[in-house]
Amino acid sequence: MDASALQVIIPIAGIAAVAFAIYLARDVLSRDKGPQAMQDVADTIREGADAFIRRQYQTIGILAVLGAVIIGVVITIVETKDVADVPDLAGAPLGIRTGIAFLVGAVCSMASGIIGMYISVRSNVRTAAAARRSVVEAVQVAMRGGAVSGFLVVALSLLGVWGIFAAYGGLGGGQATHDAPFLIVGFGFGASFVALFAQLGGGIYTKAADVGSDLVGKIEAGIPEDDPRNAAVIADLVGDNVGDCAGRGADLFESTAAENIGAMILGVAAFTIAQTSGWPHPEAWIFFPLVVRSFGLLATIVSMFFIRGREDENPMNILNRGYWVTTALSVVGLAITTNVMMNTGGALGANNIPVWVWFFGAGLVGLATSVAFVYITQYYTAGTFRPVREIAEASKTGPATNIISGVAVGFETTFVTAISIGIALIASHWLGEQAHLVNQQGTNVGGIFGTAVATMGMLMTTAYILAMDTFGPITDNAGGVAEFSRAEAGAREITDRLDAVGNTTKALTKGYAIASASLAAFLLFSAYIDKVNLIQTNRGGVLLTSVNLANVSVFVAALIGAMLVYFFSSLAIRAVGTTAQSIIVEVRRQFREMPGIMDYTQRPDYARVVDITTRAALREMVLPGAVAVATPIAVGLLLGHEAIAGMLMVGTIAGVLLATVLNNGGGAWDNAKKYIESGHLLDEQGNVIGKKTPAHAAAVVGDTVGDPFKDTAGPSLHVLVKLLATITLVLAPLFIR
Amino acid sequence: MDASALQVIIPIAGIAAVAFAIYLARDVLSRDKGPQAMQDVADTIREGADAFIRRQYQTIGILAVLGAVIIGVVITIVETKDVADVPDLAGAPLGIRTGIAFLVGAVCSMASGIIGMYISVRSNVRTAAAARRSVVEAVQVAMRGGAVSGFLVVALSLLGVWGIFAAYGGLGGGQATHDAPFLIVGFGFGASFVALFAQLGGGIYTKAADVGSDLVGKIEAGIPEDDPRNAAVIADLVGDNVGDCAGRGADLFESTAAENIGAMILGVAAFTIAQTSGWPHPEAWIFFPLVVRSFGLLATIVSMFFIRGREDENPMNILNRGYWVTTALSVVGLAITTNVMMNTGGALGANNIPVWVWFFGAGLVGLATSVAFVYITQYYTAGTFRPVREIAEASKTGPATNIISGVAVGFETTFVTAISIGIALIASHWLGEQAHLVNQQGTNVGGIFGTAVATMGMLMTTAYILAMDTFGPITDNAGGVAEFSRAEAGAREITDRLDAVGNTTKALTKGYAIASASLAAFLLFSAYIDKVNLIQTNRGGVLLTSVNLANVSVFVAALIGAMLVYFFSSLAIRAVGTTAQSIIVEVRRQFREMPGIMDYTQRPDYARVVDITTRAALREMVLPGAVAVATPIAVGLLLGHEAIAGMLMVGTIAGVLLATVLNNGGGAWDNAKKYIESGHLLDEQGNVIGKKTPAHAAAVVGDTVGDPFKDTAGPSLHVLVKLLATITLVLAPLFIR
Repeated sequence: MDASALQVIIPIAGIAAVAFAIYLARDVLSRDKGPQAMQDVADTIREGADAFIRRQYQTIGILAVLGAVIIGVVITIVETKDVADVPDLAGAPLGIRTGIAFLVGAVCSMASGIIGMYISVRSNVRTAAAARRSVVEAVQVAMRGGAVSGFLVVALSLLGVWGIFAAYGGLGGGQATHDAPFLIVGFGFGASFVALFAQLGGGIYTKAADVGSDLVGKIEAGIPEDDPRNAAVIADLVGDNVGDCAGRGADLFESTAAENIGAMILGVAAFTIAQTSGWPHPEAWIFFPLVVRSFGLLATIVSMFFIRGREDENPMNILNRGYWVTTALSVVGLAITTNVMMNTGGALGANNIPVWVWFFGAGLVGLATSVAFVYITQYYTAGTFRPVREIAEASKTGPATNIISGVAVGFETTFVTAISIGIALIASHWLGEQAHLVNQQGTNVGGIFGTAVATMGMLMTTAYILAMDTFGPITDNAGGVAEFSRAEAGAREITDRLDAVGNTTKALTKGYAIASASLAAFLLFSAYIDKVNLIQTNRGGVLLTSVNLANVSVFVAALIGAMLVYFFSSLAIRAVGTTAQSIIVEVRRQFREMPGIMDYTQRPDYARVVDITTRAALREMVLPGAVAVATPIAVGLLLGHEAIAGMLMVGTIAGVLLATVLNNGGGAWDNAKKYIESGHLLDEQGNVIGKKTPAHAAAVVGDTVGDPFKDTAGPSLHVLVKLLATITLVLAPLFIR
Repeated sequence: MDASALQVIIPIAGIAAVAFAIYLARDVLSRDKGPQAMQDVADTIREGADAFIRRQYQTIGILAVLGAVIIGVVITIVETKDVADVPDLAGAPLGIRTGIAFLVGAVCSMASGIIGMYISVRSNVRTAAAARRSVVEAVQVAMRGGAVSGFLVVALSLLGVWGIFAAYGGLGGGQATHDAPFLIVGFGFGASFVALFAQLGGGIYTKAADVGSDLVGKIEAGIPEDDPRNAAVIADLVGDNVGDCAGRGADLFESTAAENIGAMILGVAAFTIAQTSGWPHPEAWIFFPLVVRSFGLLATIVSMFFIRGREDENPMNILNRGYWVTTALSVVGLAITTNVMMNTGGALGANNIPVWVWFFGAGLVGLATSVAFVYITQYYTAGTFRPVREIAEASKTGPATNIISGVAVGFETTFVTAISIGIALIASHWLGEQAHLVNQQGTNVGGIFGTAVATMGMLMTTAYILAMDTFGPITDNAGGVAEFSRAEAGAREITDRLDAVGNTTKALTKGYAIASASLAAFLLFSAYIDKVNLIQTNRGGVLLTSVNLANVSVFVAALIGAMLVYFFSSLAIRAVGTTAQSIIVEVRRQFREMPGIMDYTQRPDYARVVDITTRAALREMVLPGAVAVATPIAVGLLLGHEAIAGMLMVGTIAGVLLATVLNNGGGAWDNAKKYIESGHLLDEQGNVIGKKTPAHAAAVVGDTVGDPFKDTAGPSLHVLVKLLATITLVLAPLFIR
């Protein structure tokens, strides 16, 4: 097959995914919404979520427009003819293009968040209604709801990158295609800018409501979770949607977009080699990342038809089946893409093995890393293994030992994470080197392109992973709707089972996101170095051949990068604490001033808590967001372009590890509580230590501590790491001295 | 004055400090030991501490001998004539010298630990006895006891480095002096090897006993802290001595030794410049670090006479007075040393300012950093400021919010830490550059020597800081002795006041140790690069001019270095949890099987708990210690000499930041509890929320969580960071490929 013919698959896969998502959405929306009581709760949740998203996106929208203007002006000023990577467009034309790309990226990122939420607030009640009848039906509704979000977000990222690439002349071939990847970096920056605030605001909202509601309801007033007498319950249910759905949608949108653009920039080097070597279709090296992801999207569509099972089956198995189908089909797609697009006209790599085979191997490393992280996360956060049991055992001696044990587990998870990432990086780099892509300066650029291919391999399954992730908050919400509307016990039982599965899938997604961020990190700062050197070549400056840690400004910038990760997390965690405390104060006030609440004769003022949480979350997201954006700019301006690269790399390392600690520690605490609640913890005589025991209370403390770790700070760190990369990429000319 | 005349001050200051320490020790030992009940407790504590130290040092001694032999053999094999930094000694002569230096360093480090403990287990009862009469007398006894340890440890480090330097021909002048610093790096490695195990074993012991005793006594049985009915109390009191005294003594011994050797290696470059430029006494540049520390030691001796005050004065003020005297005299000493020893025969630095003035400025930066960290730590851990109050306020809503708030504070402290270190590094580097020390290759090596001078400036006050630090466990123990022997309420009241001050001084020491480790880090890996390049020059290999983070093996090594810090901490924290649980089980058994304990008719079996804790702590220290030693060696062997430099640098950054989080977070939790106990926390109506309230219980949970953070993992990380540096320095030839 011809490489340029294969490129047609990009719009086809994108449009097919959108069409399939519409089909799934119509299917979900046509389902039974359950009794009126359920619909009432669901409507209240939807109103709260809509109100938050509207206000949040107004704020973010204003910030994004401001950001676009500032970036446009800065680029216009600094990207003069002697500096610009595309000299013909130096000055205002480049500034305007970058500003527009930023804005388009920001709008797509916002759309991803809205889509994620739109469908989840409608799937929750339908899942709850389905749970009154059948497990499999409930799984299907929730998974299809999640898949709508997964398909649309990934398709939007694919079509968005492709569209802006086409708009900036990327389809023209030759030099135009060569230049276009550098013009679209603003798209990635816009996407991560919005994702940062979406994840922060949503993360603060959801966990403040969760922590506040649990502390004041379960612990102080002694009423069950999601009990309608608790005025903070609606805010808690709204939070699942605005944090886990909208936030994660924007997060994965920007991940796929930014990593895609980074891979395309690296493809430019391969393009140049292909062009000078006279290989057919040199542009294919630049289009490769888009094509390989298109195959991943098609694989995911097929896998949806494998999500079926028996009523008595573990729901996780049903989801796993689909994941393995996606992975297997992705391997096939990867083989086709590398074989067709990496046509070297007969030139061979090491050991006379064709070039495409080496890169196919690198892509397999990416897919294998994805699978590895699915299992690693399970080991550390599922109740069947040592870590969670250890935390549950430690709960017997109270909350202090529970916390100590959870921190030890969280720290420990960095070991296998770092080793796996290290192996993946070195293996994919080595495989890439064997392909012998040597440029005119005699440098083998295949290694870094190998890591890019591995990253793209890993991203092939993103739509499926995102669908599983959104499954989590939908089932969590369905449980809330069932409890709140005092539905049949059987329905709540089914939603509880699904909720436990959802906890696992949410944790898996975070492991996946972190692993892909680490692979991508290396790719993104190689793209930064390429961009700096393109500028330096135009300008006749000294090339950046090394980011030297022994240089004092690089070391200090690295120190600040690692610090930023802690400081940012501190602000995010504190924001949750502050917001939760204002919720607690309000709910206590309602209990005190409205005595009828406890015997159901008075309806709590849910709206007021939703409103307080909304305002607090939006206020609290500004400082950490501003710190995340301002710090790299300040360091770059003060310490220069080599130092900022050091900050980016070490900040990434620190961010990936701290996010691992926070995500897995939080997940393990959560499941240690569930382990005790399911009656698995025994005393020395073999009696069950279950709910309402001191050990359970201790485990609840751990779970609460883990909430802002795993759902606010951790996921926000994913975005922070990408934002560092996109900021440095876009503002590189500003930092060069 | 002549530079070589000034060198005489090294043995003079060392011997003066030893003599002064003996004078102080005799003074302390001649004091009243209080009533028989007190002496009995003190004897029991001393026996337990002696038993632990004997068994611990047997284990460590065996490990050290093994280590010395292995290193000797490895160096003999790898340091062949074409590789060795001192070719005349290649092979066995160098191997034997390095092995002996390792062993001498190890023995000195062990001696430091034993000294610290010997005097502290005798000062505690005398402080308790003095507290029956007077605050000032109690402060004097505790501070003099602490100063014995401070003086002997620092003198031992000074005389040890000087002695081994002299033994290896360092006093010979010319080439012999030039070579000697490279021969003594084994000393630093031996010191940090022992310090690691001493700090780990002691840290696990002390916090396991503390956590176990508090949980089973205060929380489960509802009896006061240090109550004689609690079988774990003696183990807890033993722990103060073996962890805080013996451990910290070894820690600061190896810090001063390793940093001193690193500075001397950097001095070799200045020596060569001085020699070729014909400046008088080129050796002075190598001796400078030893001389400047000697002045610091003399300054500390003088300051001891200023530790006096009024009965009604805040004891912290009395200690601060001495600290400021030390600092002021150190400035004078620094001026004299730089002026005399940095004689450039008229050659000037930038702006025609003499060279010594620029370095004097760099030294002042070091002293200023020391003062800055004293205030930073106070801000974050003292009850008078926002962070501790915030945690105390958060305790009102239970343990979960207390923990969340404490983690936020711990993370936040990295901000000002990293910024201060960054400023100190850049300022001292810049000042050093202005001195225009240009070598034959045209490289300005003044910058890095500037950071070395700053580090030495900072280390001038070590003896005083260490004395203040040891003051902490002595007063803590004195309180325990008073409570246990049921002494007068007035005595316990005074020891409580001193204990609170001791908490602050212990926190200050950790801030100081971390700041000096960060300045030293840059110095130590510059020494590593110098050593690699000396070897590469001899061998005709490629010089290491850059540690390039964009190189995939450097990046992966950096990732592993940052991970090691978490993984090591995880092992250390888990060791505390595991050991504490076995203590809890034993004490519960005694309460159950010996019912007379509660009404004082039966004496608990203290010895059994001491024995269990000893065995568990020694068993548990092995794994983290082995991981800390083996990981850098494995990474160096697998990924090579540039990668290991990346691991060292990023591991240092990660270690410094995580230690800051753990130390300050733990300190803030501790003092938030004390804040509530002193009745500063008020409810909305202005009523005091004091002891025995749910808020206080929540704060106790935070304090317990913070214990292994601040006293086991945090301080062990200080040593880990140094160990990374000394391992890479000594084993450099093994990693070069």
